[in-house]
Amino acid sequence: MITEALLSKLLILENLRGVSEITVRELAWRTGIRENVLIHHIVDLQRTHLIEIGNNRVSWNIADNPSTLKPWGWRLEHKIVTGSVLDYVRGCGLWTVALSEYQMYGRGRHGRRWIGNLGGLWIALRLPLLPGNASYVSIAAPLIIVEILRRNYGINAWIKWPNDVVCNDKKLVGVLVEAEAYQDKIVANIGIGINVNNSPPLPNTTSLKKLMGRLIPRNSLLSLIIGWFGRIHKLLEDPKELLKKYMENMATLNRRVRAKTVAGEIEGIAIDVDEYGYLTVETPSGKKLIDPDTTLELRHLD
Amino acid sequence: MITEALLSKLLILENLRGVSEITVRELAWRTGIRENVLIHHIVDLQRTHLIEIGNNRVSWNIADNPSTLKPWGWRLEHKIVTGSVLDYVRGCGLWTVALSEYQMYGRGRHGRRWIGNLGGLWIALRLPLLPGNASYVSIAAPLIIVEILRRNYGINAWIKWPNDVVCNDKKLVGVLVEAEAYQDKIVANIGIGINVNNSPPLPNTTSLKKLMGRLIPRNSLLSLIIGWFGRIHKLLEDPKELLKKYMENMATLNRRVRAKTVAGEIEGIAIDVDEYGYLTVETPSGKKLIDPDTTLELRHLD
Repeated sequence: MITEALLSKLLILENLRGVSEITVRELAWRTGIRENVLIHHIVDLQRTHLIEIGNNRVSWNIADNPSTLKPWGWRLEHKIVTGSVLDYVRGCGLWTVALSEYQMYGRGRHGRRWIGNLGGLWIALRLPLLPGNASYVSIAAPLIIVEILRRNYGINAWIKWPNDVVCNDKKLVGVLVEAEAYQDKIVANIGIGINVNNSPPLPNTTSLKKLMGRLIPRNSLLSLIIGWFGRIHKLLEDPKELLKKYMENMATLNRRVRAKTVAGEIEGIAIDVDEYGYLTVETPSGKKLIDPDTTLELRHLD
Repeated sequence: MITEALLSKLLILENLRGVSEITVRELAWRTGIRENVLIHHIVDLQRTHLIEIGNNRVSWNIADNPSTLKPWGWRLEHKIVTGSVLDYVRGCGLWTVALSEYQMYGRGRHGRRWIGNLGGLWIALRLPLLPGNASYVSIAAPLIIVEILRRNYGINAWIKWPNDVVCNDKKLVGVLVEAEAYQDKIVANIGIGINVNNSPPLPNTTSLKKLMGRLIPRNSLLSLIIGWFGRIHKLLEDPKELLKKYMENMATLNRRVRAKTVAGEIEGIAIDVDEYGYLTVETPSGKKLIDPDTTLELRHLD
C-alpha cells in the first residue's frame, strides 16, 4: 500500500510550485484533499521545505522553490517526481539542470540505491565537454561542492575519495558522473545529491539542516552550483591545478583506509591520487593502486 | 515507505494521457525510469488499463484514456491523482465532470473510505438543480447506472437500497450525492465509483472486468453516464415515474433485510420505498420506516 502522506505532499508541491501563494481552500480544491488533512500534510512538509502557512494562505518560499529560479544560459527542469533525475536528464538538451523533489529509483555508484527523499537537492546537469577534459569532471564536481559548502556555508566539508563530500566523516553529498560520446563531443551527465533538509535514512550520513540547525533555502545553493558548472571548462583546462586542489581538500589522504574492491579488500595508508583518480595505498606488502571504478566502498579507519 | 510501483504507474499515466503514442525510450526519458523497469510497470498497468505496447511504442487506447474525450456541454477534468474526486469537483465550475485515476482519500457514505485503486471509474459530476428536484438525485443516479449497465453492457444490475448498484448481490457501484445551496440554485456534486477494471479489495464486491472476463474500455461508459446526467432534469421532473422505475430495479424489495442504523438493528421484509427514499420494513413488531441517511449498512439475508 502506498503511503498517502508522501503522495499528498508531492501533490501539494506540484500545486504550489507555479503560484506565489494560494488559499488553503483553493489548494484543497485543486488537490481534492480536505482542508484539515491538507493542513496536517503542509505542517509536515515544513520539516523539509520552506513552506509558509498563515492567514489561510500557503506559499512555497521563493528561496526554496526551484521553479522560481531562471538560471542564465541553462534550462531548469523542476520535476516533482522522477525515477532518477540522472536518468531524466539524459533525455534533455545540453545545458539543462534537472531537479527532482523525490526520486523513486535514485542511483548511486555501482548501481546502488541513492535514497532521494523529500527535502534534499537531487539534481543532474547535462553539458558538453571537450573529449580531453571529460575524465576530470569526477574530480572537479566534488571539489566544486566542497568549495561552495566551505565558502558560502561555513561547513567544514572534505572530499572523501573518490567523489563523496563529507563533514566529520559523515556523508553529505554524493556525485555520480556518466558520459556519452555524442558526435565529436562528450556529453557529461552529472548527478549530484545533497542532503539539505531531508533526513538521510542511512548511518554515517548527515545533512545541512542537521549541521546548521535550521532549514536551508535551496535556491542559493543551487544557483552557486549552476554558476560553477557553467564555468567548469576553465577548471578542466588546468588539470594539474585541479588535481592539486582536489588533494588539498581530501579527507582521505594520509589516513588509514580499507577499500573494498571487486578484487578483494586492501588496507593501508592512502598517500596519493593521480590524474586518473587512482588512489595509491601503502600496505605492508607495498604500494597498491586502487581504481575508483572498481572500488565498492572505502572506509576511513582512523 | 511508498510503493514505487504505484507511483511509477501514476507517472506513466501522467505522461501517456496527452500523447497518442510515445516510444519506450522517450517515456523513459520523460519519467526518468529506466527502460527495463518501465516496461515491467507498463505490463503491470495492462491489468487495469488499456495500454498498448509493441514495436517499442506505448499508447493508451483512446477508448480508455479519458483525456481524449470531449463531452459536449461539459468540462472534463482528467486527474491522475486526487485526495477524492468528489472533493476535487467542489472547486470546479458547473457542468464539470471530474475523473481521478487514483484517489488517496476516496469517500463513501457516512465518512467511510472508498478505495479508489487503479482501473476503476472514479468520477464526480457538478451540476445545478432546481431546489424542488434536488432530493431525487440520489434516486436517479443509481437508476441511471443500472439502466446503462443493463442496456449497454448486458449486466444483470440492480439497485441495492439506498443507492448502491449490485450484480448477484455483489457491489459494483457506489454513489454519493452532496448538495450545496448556491444563490437560488442547488448545486449537486454527484460522486460515482464504478469497479470497472480495478480489483476491488473488499468482500462482496465485483467489477465489470470480472463479470465480463475482459478489460472494459471506460470512455464509452463514461460518455453514456455524462449523456444521461446531461438530461437528468427530465428524469427529475416526474418523480412518480422515477420512483416507480427505481423500485422496479431494486434488488432489496420483497426480501428479508437487516439494517444497521444509528439507532440499532432492524430485521424484516423490505416492502416499499417512498419519495424521500425511506424504506419500509415489515418486522414482527410492525412496519418500520428506515431513513437512508442514518442507515450504516443494509444486508440482504435471503
